[in-house]
Amino acid sequence: MTGGKASRLKLKAQIYLGEHIAIGPGKADLLDAVRDTGSIAAAGRRLGISYRRTRDMIDTLNRCWGSPVVETARGGSSGGGSRLTQRGNEVLAAYRALEAALGQAAEGPVAALLGMLEEFGPDRQD
Amino acid sequence: MTGGKASRLKLKAQIYLGEHIAIGPGKADLLDAVRDTGSIAAAGRRLGISYRRTRDMIDTLNRCWGSPVVETARGGSSGGGSRLTQRGNEVLAAYRALEAALGQAAEGPVAALLGMLEEFGPDRQD
Repeated sequence: MTGGKASRLKLKAQIYLGEHIAIGPGKADLLDAVRDTGSIAAAGRRLGISYRRTRDMIDTLNRCWGSPVVETARGGSSGGGSRLTQRGNEVLAAYRALEAALGQAAEGPVAALLGMLEEFGPDRQD
Repeated sequence: MTGGKASRLKLKAQIYLGEHIAIGPGKADLLDAVRDTGSIAAAGRRLGISYRRTRDMIDTLNRCWGSPVVETARGGSSGGGSRLTQRGNEVLAAYRALEAALGQAAEGPVAALLGMLEEFGPDRQD
């Protein structure tokens, strides 16, 4: 462990419904990627996850939230256009609001911890 | 997915120093257990982790924070008394303060998400 290593906070918030993750960082990023790419397959590729896993995540989202969060254009074939439903947009926005609130609340307490790492940490170069 | 499943938030905050976790839920629980049991071995047993893993976690804590967070009584043998140092208490208290701030900040946004699960979720019984 050498001096000058970067210290940082990693935060993860997950909403469980029973044993299923209804929304968390991975599913939120997937919804973002579907919105950006207009395609479930392209969204999975962007995130580096298999098409099978991507479909499973979308299925879990759809089941947890009671109706589709992603819809595919009528007549669309594989690779065809997909987009978030209103429900998908609402769920994603509410999750990002949670992340923003957590990030803001963390600032003071994390500064205290990082200050202790700075003060106490290994290999001070002074 | 049947009706009436419990929904809940799971939050995880970790402070990284380089690639090492300087403090997170597991290490905080370990420090709590050392404080409660007065023994590194007993703390590991309480948490259901091996003695080897327990020692590794303590070693990482000690290296990240620059000096011991746990001290073992002079002359103590295996099973002998261990306790948190002042630094260990400070790190643990700062981490619990972070968790408390996050929990409080989460309340409103999580209520919104749980409300959407309640409203939209599967298998409404009405």
